[in-house]
Amino acid sequence: MVQAARADAQRNRELLLGAARDAFAAHGTDASLRDVARSAGVGIGTLYRHFPTREALLEALLDSNFEELRAGAEELLGSPREPQDALHAWLTALAAGARTYVGLPESIMAALADENSKLHASCAAMRASCARLLDRAQKAGTVRSGVTASEVIALAIGLAWAAQQPGAPPDSMARLLSTAMHGLAVPG
Amino acid sequence: MVQAARADAQRNRELLLGAARDAFAAHGTDASLRDVARSAGVGIGTLYRHFPTREALLEALLDSNFEELRAGAEELLGSPREPQDALHAWLTALAAGARTYVGLPESIMAALADENSKLHASCAAMRASCARLLDRAQKAGTVRSGVTASEVIALAIGLAWAAQQPGAPPDSMARLLSTAMHGLAVPG
Repeated sequence: MVQAARADAQRNRELLLGAARDAFAAHGTDASLRDVARSAGVGIGTLYRHFPTREALLEALLDSNFEELRAGAEELLGSPREPQDALHAWLTALAAGARTYVGLPESIMAALADENSKLHASCAAMRASCARLLDRAQKAGTVRSGVTASEVIALAIGLAWAAQQPGAPPDSMARLLSTAMHGLAVPG
Repeated sequence: MVQAARADAQRNRELLLGAARDAFAAHGTDASLRDVARSAGVGIGTLYRHFPTREALLEALLDSNFEELRAGAEELLGSPREPQDALHAWLTALAAGARTYVGLPESIMAALADENSKLHASCAAMRASCARLLDRAQKAGTVRSGVTASEVIALAIGLAWAAQQPGAPPDSMARLLSTAMHGLAVPG
């Protein structure tokens, strides 16, 4: 019974995170939490039991985003893809996630910088996975040595921020990231 | 007499803009306007005569920034520098200016996108100068064709934004921009 209740709670938590992600993407981080609970199919009380404040919800969302990126990097490391392609695919996922809602690029950069942040552990794990992807491509001789994981992350998040600004054409993220990937490549 | 008064007013305006730029760089755009007037050596009344609101002052600052960038591009176009180097120098100036204070990268991107902005004319002139620098480097065969002026500007401003985030190492702007320049280069 306790286990079933726990599984239920875990399921609700995931439904809430999914609904929050969609709502923040569509309406910004001021989106109605009542609507989030409604979309998740739970009551507002359940939402507040999991996430006492809007900040707690945003933080949990970011934490799960970092965890997904870490898992995605591990998957790419195990795949037969070219190391440089794998890095490009991962940075595309990072940038795509980072532009989900206004303010997210700032939050990611802050979490990376602040060692006292609750998110620092998941953030550092994400960066470590990126470092492994980068290192592999550098060892394969296709990506410039001397570039750090923090730099390629800053590059991708900076471009995600630029592509998120009003007036940016819909394909600008892919085009900017492609230029950045050319910049990371060893020429020839 | 009228001319002397006009020259005086023009001089005060420039002193105020210089003082505001320094104050916003040091203390953010909430910096005290009384301190700005004091640094410029004028009374607060003179400041408000030139700039009725803080927004008007920020707008004038941005306008003069765009004009300087346009003039800088023209100067580079007339210099004997390599076209690719000239573009790199100009993007460095753009990015350095863009990170002067928090919120400036956003304002620049907004001015570029909004055709109804008061800043649109100076912004478009700045972009046109960038296009001439870019075109020259593309014709020289050292910078990739198919990249637009809007894209290289978005690239530089995105990296300026990233380099402005807390925790970014002091040399990150130069390093990120160097990667971007490698990305713009025709390989080989």
